[in-house]
Amino acid sequence: MQDTSFVIPLWADLTAVAIGGVQGAVYAAQFRDRRLDLLGVAIIGIASGLGGGLVRDIFLGRLPVALTDNWYVPAAVVAALLGMLLERVFTRLATVITVLDALTIGLFCAIGTSKALVLGLPAIPAIFLGTISAVGGTIVRDLLLSVPIAFMHVGSLYAVAAGVGATTLVILHAVGVPIFLAAIICVAVTFGLRVLAVFFNWTVPEQRRLERIPRLPRLRRTRPESR
Amino acid sequence: MQDTSFVIPLWADLTAVAIGGVQGAVYAAQFRDRRLDLLGVAIIGIASGLGGGLVRDIFLGRLPVALTDNWYVPAAVVAALLGMLLERVFTRLATVITVLDALTIGLFCAIGTSKALVLGLPAIPAIFLGTISAVGGTIVRDLLLSVPIAFMHVGSLYAVAAGVGATTLVILHAVGVPIFLAAIICVAVTFGLRVLAVFFNWTVPEQRRLERIPRLPRLRRTRPESR
Amino acid sequence: MQDTSFVIPLWADLTAVAIGGVQGAVYAAQFRDRRLDLLGVAIIGIASGLGGGLVRDIFLGRLPVALTDNWYVPAAVVAALLGMLLERVFTRLATVITVLDALTIGLFCAIGTSKALVLGLPAIPAIFLGTISAVGGTIVRDLLLSVPIAFMHVGSLYAVAAGVGATTLVILHAVGVPIFLAAIICVAVTFGLRVLAVFFNWTVPEQRRLERIPRLPRLRRTRPESR
Repeated sequence: MQDTSFVIPLWADLTAVAIGGVQGAVYAAQFRDRRLDLLGVAIIGIASGLGGGLVRDIFLGRLPVALTDNWYVPAAVVAALLGMLLERVFTRLATVITVLDALTIGLFCAIGTSKALVLGLPAIPAIFLGTISAVGGTIVRDLLLSVPIAFMHVGSLYAVAAGVGATTLVILHAVGVPIFLAAIICVAVTFGLRVLAVFFNWTVPEQRRLERIPRLPRLRRTRPESR
Repeated sequence: MQDTSFVIPLWADLTAVAIGGVQGAVYAAQFRDRRLDLLGVAIIGIASGLGGGLVRDIFLGRLPVALTDNWYVPAAVVAALLGMLLERVFTRLATVITVLDALTIGLFCAIGTSKALVLGLPAIPAIFLGTISAVGGTIVRDLLLSVPIAFMHVGSLYAVAAGVGATTLVILHAVGVPIFLAAIICVAVTFGLRVLAVFFNWTVPEQRRLERIPRLPRLRRTRPESR
Repeated sequence: MQDTSFVIPLWADLTAVAIGGVQGAVYAAQFRDRRLDLLGVAIIGIASGLGGGLVRDIFLGRLPVALTDNWYVPAAVVAALLGMLLERVFTRLATVITVLDALTIGLFCAIGTSKALVLGLPAIPAIFLGTISAVGGTIVRDLLLSVPIAFMHVGSLYAVAAGVGATTLVILHAVGVPIFLAAIICVAVTFGLRVLAVFFNWTVPEQRRLERIPRLPRLRRTRPESR
């Protein structure tokens, strides 16, 4: 039998939540045409910081961890208000934010994947759940802000990084690596991929480019309205 | 006592999921102004194929079936990527898609309604849950694509077909028809209504048309800005 | 030990649901460019009337109350259809609607907060859940209507009123006030704040106004594009 309990320390979990909250506020501030009040910023902080964990636990049919402790909501709210006040600073520290954000994705991914494995979910659902945990916060954030879901569009390797990290964790766990060590490697892989993706501007192939492959010249002529 | 266990065979469930995935990809491809990458298409496939079942099980407070088995996520993803590659073919086979889609709605509706009945929910919540199961995938898909929710707008008899099908299942179950037979009739009713609605272009009365009924000429004059 | 059971009478719960349904229909009717059919109006009624309770119970990992009884869905649907037919009347009675609406927020807030306390959640998660219960219906409504989430934008003290009401309930409960009495005071506080906020046009400070505080004149010149 292997070690199946992976308990993240509360301070680490809260740090991830707070970084998510800061990021949400800085992200929301860029929409100059949308007037968010203090409450709106606090809500975006909660969505960005707690969204991933809430989605994870709702999918698992469990009481969300954020509802079992007094520290989660304040951590996200205070971080978001700080993010708003110091937006100008954070915008200049874009590199720092990218690095911290990649670390957060990695942490949420590792927590989600290992929680799924500990609860007995099969490999692929565990990867799915880990990925959802990593990107859930940005989905909830974008839904509440009524902006296009960031990770649906070209240029975002958020979910790919999380998916590869979660897959790594599941494989390592299957071959007998202790889950705590597997989780740390998962954080490292997700973090590394995400940071490299941002710095090297990697993208996933687009839908339209692929569609073009089977398009023959003859077919083009049947669509004169495309001119 | 009647037979209350309604277990859909895995292959049938996965077929419904795959058709949902194909549909999601073909639907997403029509938005030429939105650039979805391969990942986006996979996500829309998951949303369209698994969304209804996820929403159903989350409403029921149960671990989603799609998270208990390794086949669901890959079925939706592979179907969506196929749907993207063969989009041109599927677009020409619109009739085939409509028919398959109606079958999927019927299947999801029957599974959702009978699962609710088996879990002891009353009649009207069972109908509600069956309908949500049938349309949940399209709601999640449209939310992620940031497009207006399809079934909220005139011309879509999606939910009506599912609602009538679910009601039929609940009534048949109440009068003693075995749930498996009732479920098959539910699929047939939902399927038939949906296909007929598409071919005969049925719609539900609009909000504005109804509003006009109680409007008296005298009232019109009090609103000169309507000219 | 204190009295921890707070059971709202069914008629009161259904009244709150029905007022929510009416409000949803009247709200949806103002979007003249969006053509909702009868079904769409019924769905908005369900979203507005049941959304808060559904979100609350899904967050708690419980079977939603609305799925345990035959009356909830019809109450929301019938109320929404009535709201659509009588939209003209309700629009003139804007004051009545505002008052009823504030009462509904207060009721949902009190039910959500006390349910959380009864289930053993800590203070801050209970306040969070009560607030979500109060505003959840409007979030689901706006997501389905594809309009900006109302409570995210300046001028809406919806969530603040609910948050203050929920906080009052939690404090009163902590100092030994029976939960039923604490819930009634919560309804009164939320109701009062919301009504006063509407009549006196209170708002929360905006994000941009705060940002301006640390902005020095020197920094302005570095952004010539703002002219």
